[in-house]
Amino acid sequence: MSFGNLVQSKVYQQLEKNIIPVSYEELEAKAREHLEDKPFYYVAASAGAQSAADKNNRAFEKWQIVPRMLCDTSSRDLSVSLFGKKMEYPVLCAPIGVQSIIHPQGELASARAAAAMKIPFISSTASTYSLEKISEAYGEGEKWFQLYWSSDREVAGSMVRRADQAGYSAIVITLDTPMMAWREKDIEHAYLPFLEAKGIGNYLEDPVFCSRLEVSPQEDIKAAVLLWAKIFGNPSLTWKDLEYLRMQTNLPILLKGILHPEDARLAEEHGADGIIVSNHGGRQLDGVIPAIDALPDVVEAVGDRVPVLMDSGIRRGADIVKALSLGAKAVFIGRPYMYGLALAGEEGVKQVLRNILADFDLSMALSGKCSVAELNRGLLRGSSVR
Amino acid sequence: MSFGNLVQSKVYQQLEKNIIPVSYEELEAKAREHLEDKPFYYVAASAGAQSAADKNNRAFEKWQIVPRMLCDTSSRDLSVSLFGKKMEYPVLCAPIGVQSIIHPQGELASARAAAAMKIPFISSTASTYSLEKISEAYGEGEKWFQLYWSSDREVAGSMVRRADQAGYSAIVITLDTPMMAWREKDIEHAYLPFLEAKGIGNYLEDPVFCSRLEVSPQEDIKAAVLLWAKIFGNPSLTWKDLEYLRMQTNLPILLKGILHPEDARLAEEHGADGIIVSNHGGRQLDGVIPAIDALPDVVEAVGDRVPVLMDSGIRRGADIVKALSLGAKAVFIGRPYMYGLALAGEEGVKQVLRNILADFDLSMALSGKCSVAELNRGLLRGSSVR
Amino acid sequence: MSFGNLVQSKVYQQLEKNIIPVSYEELEAKAREHLEDKPFYYVAASAGAQSAADKNNRAFEKWQIVPRMLCDTSSRDLSVSLFGKKMEYPVLCAPIGVQSIIHPQGELASARAAAAMKIPFISSTASTYSLEKISEAYGEGEKWFQLYWSSDREVAGSMVRRADQAGYSAIVITLDTPMMAWREKDIEHAYLPFLEAKGIGNYLEDPVFCSRLEVSPQEDIKAAVLLWAKIFGNPSLTWKDLEYLRMQTNLPILLKGILHPEDARLAEEHGADGIIVSNHGGRQLDGVIPAIDALPDVVEAVGDRVPVLMDSGIRRGADIVKALSLGAKAVFIGRPYMYGLALAGEEGVKQVLRNILADFDLSMALSGKCSVAELNRGLLRGSSVR
Amino acid sequence: MSFGNLVQSKVYQQLEKNIIPVSYEELEAKAREHLEDKPFYYVAASAGAQSAADKNNRAFEKWQIVPRMLCDTSSRDLSVSLFGKKMEYPVLCAPIGVQSIIHPQGELASARAAAAMKIPFISSTASTYSLEKISEAYGEGEKWFQLYWSSDREVAGSMVRRADQAGYSAIVITLDTPMMAWREKDIEHAYLPFLEAKGIGNYLEDPVFCSRLEVSPQEDIKAAVLLWAKIFGNPSLTWKDLEYLRMQTNLPILLKGILHPEDARLAEEHGADGIIVSNHGGRQLDGVIPAIDALPDVVEAVGDRVPVLMDSGIRRGADIVKALSLGAKAVFIGRPYMYGLALAGEEGVKQVLRNILADFDLSMALSGKCSVAELNRGLLRGSSVR
Repeated sequence: MSFGNLVQSKVYQQLEKNIIPVSYEELEAKAREHLEDKPFYYVAASAGAQSAADKNNRAFEKWQIVPRMLCDTSSRDLSVSLFGKKMEYPVLCAPIGVQSIIHPQGELASARAAAAMKIPFISSTASTYSLEKISEAYGEGEKWFQLYWSSDREVAGSMVRRADQAGYSAIVITLDTPMMAWREKDIEHAYLPFLEAKGIGNYLEDPVFCSRLEVSPQEDIKAAVLLWAKIFGNPSLTWKDLEYLRMQTNLPILLKGILHPEDARLAEEHGADGIIVSNHGGRQLDGVIPAIDALPDVVEAVGDRVPVLMDSGIRRGADIVKALSLGAKAVFIGRPYMYGLALAGEEGVKQVLRNILADFDLSMALSGKCSVAELNRGLLRGSSVR
Repeated sequence: MSFGNLVQSKVYQQLEKNIIPVSYEELEAKAREHLEDKPFYYVAASAGAQSAADKNNRAFEKWQIVPRMLCDTSSRDLSVSLFGKKMEYPVLCAPIGVQSIIHPQGELASARAAAAMKIPFISSTASTYSLEKISEAYGEGEKWFQLYWSSDREVAGSMVRRADQAGYSAIVITLDTPMMAWREKDIEHAYLPFLEAKGIGNYLEDPVFCSRLEVSPQEDIKAAVLLWAKIFGNPSLTWKDLEYLRMQTNLPILLKGILHPEDARLAEEHGADGIIVSNHGGRQLDGVIPAIDALPDVVEAVGDRVPVLMDSGIRRGADIVKALSLGAKAVFIGRPYMYGLALAGEEGVKQVLRNILADFDLSMALSGKCSVAELNRGLLRGSSVR
Repeated sequence: MSFGNLVQSKVYQQLEKNIIPVSYEELEAKAREHLEDKPFYYVAASAGAQSAADKNNRAFEKWQIVPRMLCDTSSRDLSVSLFGKKMEYPVLCAPIGVQSIIHPQGELASARAAAAMKIPFISSTASTYSLEKISEAYGEGEKWFQLYWSSDREVAGSMVRRADQAGYSAIVITLDTPMMAWREKDIEHAYLPFLEAKGIGNYLEDPVFCSRLEVSPQEDIKAAVLLWAKIFGNPSLTWKDLEYLRMQTNLPILLKGILHPEDARLAEEHGADGIIVSNHGGRQLDGVIPAIDALPDVVEAVGDRVPVLMDSGIRRGADIVKALSLGAKAVFIGRPYMYGLALAGEEGVKQVLRNILADFDLSMALSGKCSVAELNRGLLRGSSVR
Repeated sequence: MSFGNLVQSKVYQQLEKNIIPVSYEELEAKAREHLEDKPFYYVAASAGAQSAADKNNRAFEKWQIVPRMLCDTSSRDLSVSLFGKKMEYPVLCAPIGVQSIIHPQGELASARAAAAMKIPFISSTASTYSLEKISEAYGEGEKWFQLYWSSDREVAGSMVRRADQAGYSAIVITLDTPMMAWREKDIEHAYLPFLEAKGIGNYLEDPVFCSRLEVSPQEDIKAAVLLWAKIFGNPSLTWKDLEYLRMQTNLPILLKGILHPEDARLAEEHGADGIIVSNHGGRQLDGVIPAIDALPDVVEAVGDRVPVLMDSGIRRGADIVKALSLGAKAVFIGRPYMYGLALAGEEGVKQVLRNILADFDLSMALSGKCSVAELNRGLLRGSSVR
């Protein structure tokens, strides 16, 4: 007999002794102790006034759950269908680059942990390891590729085609990073891992990128970094540029970073297959609206015609219940799994994911809900305390 | 002449020197110092983000009392009638299980203290001591039995019949615990006292439960614990299952854990004799609505047809005045008396109860009210500061 | 040339070097250091949750001043007329009893300081020194007497007649203290100075009170204290009892402690000459509405027919500007002058009063206002930050 | 290749290693350590309760930015035109007097740094150095003169004419300082640098001022200070007095310190060329409305007929985006550059300005905006967290 058995979350039953803190706040505090300043702040800090990440989560307190009783929640199915594929849970690992700055195995460890938990993994353009290696580490199952759209559009196209070939099943285009943000800690530390040739693995193994260099990256890594810095961002992009990418692949294309309902309408108009409401975990624009505050208007703008996902601020099961009740089809987890990685590698990521899933599963049951389809705004009420 | 005499609260006049802090915050802080981590957090912590208990109380600050003057409050009658029985005060001791983890005499000490203060005691299914022993400790007077509805319904029925026989005068069915919650501290400590055979006294002395075992619990306590773990929760319950319990007893049946007005209507429809608005002291669902926020809608849903009681967040007399003004017929006190028990056993519980009653009595008088019937929302106003 | 000259507050020009902190928060902190626990908490603490005093002041932040420019404020007249008498400023010293627990000269020192600053002094029934001695210390000028209405109404009547004879020009009846409140710190300390025969000077010198004793207080102080405890409060008072007091004096009678607009209407109906919106500095009812929150409804209820004054939360000049703009005719200062008294006796009180007046005078000028009559709600706006 | 290049802010590309903290909060904390109490609090403190400066900034959190995506922000023009002159950015250095108390080079260093960053410098009447010397230090480019309108109007007229001759291109009249405010720290320290003959350089070199003295300031500085104290403030000013100043110059005249929409209408009526919504960084009136809260009503009152600028609370790029979106044509930076000056003189000011401009430029780009003309309230939304 186990504690988990009694708790009766499906996920919880697999729970082994935690080697990392269960509480998000304690997890972050422990990661703070464990990591050097530069990598810790690269992960933890927000843009500008450094409060956007914190506000992302606090904004969830605007809503409180009014649970239902006596609903027979003994059997729960938390799966969702997206783009014709079934996912065990409405939860994905957010794309996060250059994970090797906090653990040598970086994205490979994270991908393996995600696979073990049946959580789709979104591979970042800015990964330490190439998308092919990450795909291999993840193995079978749902994995997506996130694209930072290079100003050299053929590089962008090449990456999309590689992702397609490597078995990724959706492309997530991040819109909110036409350039790096004003991250005060990184600026003070003059720290950007890419300039140390970390997090550019996808470029170094890209045939188009390499064809732009006079010699191979192995021979002149500095030149590769210089080229990377030149083409990484692309502030000149506009809606019509989406056509080019659309021609590179038949995979569904999701647009990440949409916060304004007018942009949601434009996304629909330009054929986006999905929208991800996100403020990049508060890392890009200081003073930005919390993602959960932006979600309802975006959902209203596109109705059921385009699936809306969200990230930025998900820390616990109740956050997922709230986001789904407000119309999100699925959510991404970001910093929590990074702290798990920092503290205990693959096993740390697994524990973080398992904890969040168990917490989510229980929150569903205790809200009186057996499936994601049963969630809607009637479960929530505006809050008198935050 | 005594200080209490001057203060003129009826209860206060019996006040002896406090051996425990009068302030709730200091009481909790002292209990924190006194107890080991595991039992302290088992009592004090909330589910998930660990803020629900705190929010339960802070939400009372949404309302402020606008007292009336020159009302002749020299003679006050704080009694209420529930189910044809008179209670001295609209206050009960909330059902709390496994009290022996903080004091060896556990529920027996609490019950004796409640009896001394003429406060009805609600005996928890999960008590250390059996309902019969607690009934004996409490003696004459109003006592209720709280039921965790086992997935073995005959065990549930047996307990209800035993409660009836043992002199309990109402049955409180807790709805919000179909399974254990995600309590981060307990999970980190891998601590659940029941797995150490604490808090299962009612089962060990139950004939139906024992008939399920191959040997007596004395001979194989581990098997008993295993069976307990298997049947404790019952997530498959639905409204129609209430009929079975109704057939076991003629006692009034109250449903505890209702927060949604629609569930209040269902409770009425299914013949509940009373409703207890509660979020289990914040211990079950993270992100849940504070009980005092849920109260007005529930009261509105059932009008005067079903008495509505509440718990979760009552710390002082003003909280009671507010809850009653918003329509509750009575309230339960939980953690405060647990901290009194932890620090000073029966005498500690007595002091906590006496302090809260004296504070409540004075708050009534200083609000210009002599009886519970005079309280209504006109006494309150929304607040500009929290 | 002086700093004060430049600052150009009329009051400021008399400013000498401060020997006590100018900031209220620092003043309180220094008094905390200076005083023993018992007297400090007797002055500083609120009832119950101990937050009402703090909320009284924070509630002022609901309103912000929108000052006017280019108004020629070179000449300001801050005087007000009340009951046919002119007061230099719309500011009075609140009635505070038993001041000797923080300084041996107690009310005598405070009264002298108030007289020096041309601030009316309100002498408390519960003063250390008799109302006659305080009147003598204050000398000429406006002074009022505050009555705790004894349950022995002839004692109350006797005090009112004595006040009349001793030159007081108004009677303030405190309504919110039919009995002592639940002050957790005092209860924990089992501290009530009156039981040590402090703060009962007005009784010991009262002929009616003494006539109730078998021997003189000098011979048996304990019996006097016992009698005092018996008759101090009067929870049985109702509106019609006002008639008796009205027959004892022709002085204007103000009712202190009114918060509910309905009570304001009753006060008008029963011929009150003035109303003081007050929650006794948060010392009586836990969970009570902040006085500044209650003020607008009370002012609306009685219009210009009954002058409304207020106390509870005034700490600085801007608070006075806001209270007057919301309809108060004058305000009382309480704890600030107590801390001045504790730290530096008469000179300390003088500095506190002078600082508040200078701050108020400047706040008027910088708001573009030359007289109290120019203040109204148009000067204020609801606030987006608190 | 540089970090700045990658970040792609135009200003950022010039960024050298910061020698002072990038974060405003850390910058202020470091200045606190570096400076003596008196000058630090003279710069940092607010009037009265000392919270107005903090509230000025926190009030920006009422609004959050809802950025737009895929807008082609590769080429941005942040310039604005005011009074027929082009400014590189909608940002000016606020007029701040007596800067020598925190750095010996004072306004000369600040002016040089502003010139290097192409930021207009507003020279304060209360500068350490004369307006002519500051003009020379700044060199070519846009510089404005701020006037404290002396009660000796010929001194005021003389200064305006000198500013005109020295190449200043606009006159900013500060309205909110008819007299010094109640600054508790300065009062406690009895500190006003002017009384030590600091910050009166413009007077000492003014022919009209000197003609009022019997001997030259060099011979009797005390007499000069006395005269200065006598004529510095002018609380008797009214709207019609503006005519006199208008006759002294053809330069545009802006009125600084307007917060009430009615005053904005009066400013328009009396021919003001511009309005500056400001509460003097919270230094004048305690309890005052935050400037950003006052801005929308003022903008609405005068429409596009009079340009509205603002200061008080600008700390980062997002604050500028919000102020401009709410209708300000430009903003002033105050305390941030003072802390830069305190810590590292001219270079410190340069870094502070460059950081704010880079942050602003990036915030524009990440909001999807290429020019100030594109900003309007549609970019903002009310916030659920602060």
